[in-house]
Amino acid sequence: MDNYFTKRTTIRNFSDKEVPNNIITDILTAAAQAPTTGGMQLYSVIVTRDETIKNELCLQHFNQPASKGANLLLTFCADFNRFEKWCILRNATPGYRNFQSFITALLDVTIFAQQFNTIAEINGLGCCYLGTTTYNAPKIAQILNLPEMVVPVITLAVGYPKSNCCTQPTERLPISSIIHSEKYNDYTDSDIENIYFEKENLESNQKFVIENSKETLAQVFTDIRYTKNNNEIFSKLYYDFIECSGFKLT
Amino acid sequence: MDNYFTKRTTIRNFSDKEVPNNIITDILTAAAQAPTTGGMQLYSVIVTRDETIKNELCLQHFNQPASKGANLLLTFCADFNRFEKWCILRNATPGYRNFQSFITALLDVTIFAQQFNTIAEINGLGCCYLGTTTYNAPKIAQILNLPEMVVPVITLAVGYPKSNCCTQPTERLPISSIIHSEKYNDYTDSDIENIYFEKENLESNQKFVIENSKETLAQVFTDIRYTKNNNEIFSKLYYDFIECSGFKLT
Repeated sequence: MDNYFTKRTTIRNFSDKEVPNNIITDILTAAAQAPTTGGMQLYSVIVTRDETIKNELCLQHFNQPASKGANLLLTFCADFNRFEKWCILRNATPGYRNFQSFITALLDVTIFAQQFNTIAEINGLGCCYLGTTTYNAPKIAQILNLPEMVVPVITLAVGYPKSNCCTQPTERLPISSIIHSEKYNDYTDSDIENIYFEKENLESNQKFVIENSKETLAQVFTDIRYTKNNNEIFSKLYYDFIECSGFKLT
Repeated sequence: MDNYFTKRTTIRNFSDKEVPNNIITDILTAAAQAPTTGGMQLYSVIVTRDETIKNELCLQHFNQPASKGANLLLTFCADFNRFEKWCILRNATPGYRNFQSFITALLDVTIFAQQFNTIAEINGLGCCYLGTTTYNAPKIAQILNLPEMVVPVITLAVGYPKSNCCTQPTERLPISSIIHSEKYNDYTDSDIENIYFEKENLESNQKFVIENSKETLAQVFTDIRYTKNNNEIFSKLYYDFIECSGFKLT
């Protein structure tokens, strides 16, 4: 299999070298050839280079070092605004303020962002997905002047990798645990033991458990990294924001 | 920019040539190195090769020719089942039955599917996204024996392209209409006119309007391809199914 795909990794440490606008535009142009539902291209991307705006955004990403150190932030949004405006101008009645259409735009923008990520990496840039976009979407939307029917979904921190930064691919579960042949084959306890064995026994992950004073790696996820309480708070924030933006979810 | 990315296109006509299992496994292995939230890999893929099951699935994809003619169907699912089972086995209390976690898994699986799509195409396979997966998710889940916390999101029809099939890249909106610099710059009517000018004036799209007895291309989308009525029916079906699967959305 192609070397880039099996060896790629997320970059969190960036050099100060500027990424020229024309390179970003070229990569986005190529990324837009990725599949999109019915050719509708239900997405927009806001490219933030200005230091003041970038700092405001970083705050909403909890000042993660990857966001602070990046040359650019790209905020990828699910966008039915452009398409709706076109429909209205062309005597067509849009019917997209619903859950199904929101999901369609969400898939469209994610495919576009991931295609950007791949092409950028192949061309020597480093990228880091900021998972915080769906947490603080209301504030991010305010900073970026997003109108109705535009919802921020993904932020990529983008820049040239720092020369000495880690480029080791991250560990993954055995692929056999991801693939189901013909039908879903549900996991037994013993399957789960096998699937997570290598991950749990990585030195870095064992260190992680000790540093966080937990008994198991799973507890680091449930009690520290992705807690029920935070998930529930940010669920309500995001859900309400999406409805506020114009998509009636239920 | 790299030739593959700017020239790629969706394939809907497949040859009968079989795609060996080891090739699918290799591509999925490479695709799993794509970014994933916190290394959680919140996805599964069901590979359907069996003719009987494939026919059952095709029916749920309205027997689209791309689904019928494909050598394989890959159903990509948002999957918190595996991760939850691991948490429980490791004395950790999962808090993932909510909207935010569903969205996280949705992004994870979409990134994984798109990475598969790219690597498959680079290696000479053809793929077609079937947008019908989020329409008929309940039936698809039943056919594939999906347990709680597993939701079908994307189906890729996969095979070798038919030798004489179209490989022209599909038209896209001008990239300047997708990119916003620093903040979102909302569209005026005149912007919309310019953005859609080329698309509306393509011979194939003008033919499409006439064939469907519509006044404008936008009406083909709102009245025939993606109607309010269908969107609302399938919104309710998908929303209810996701909640039934265990994610409490609101």
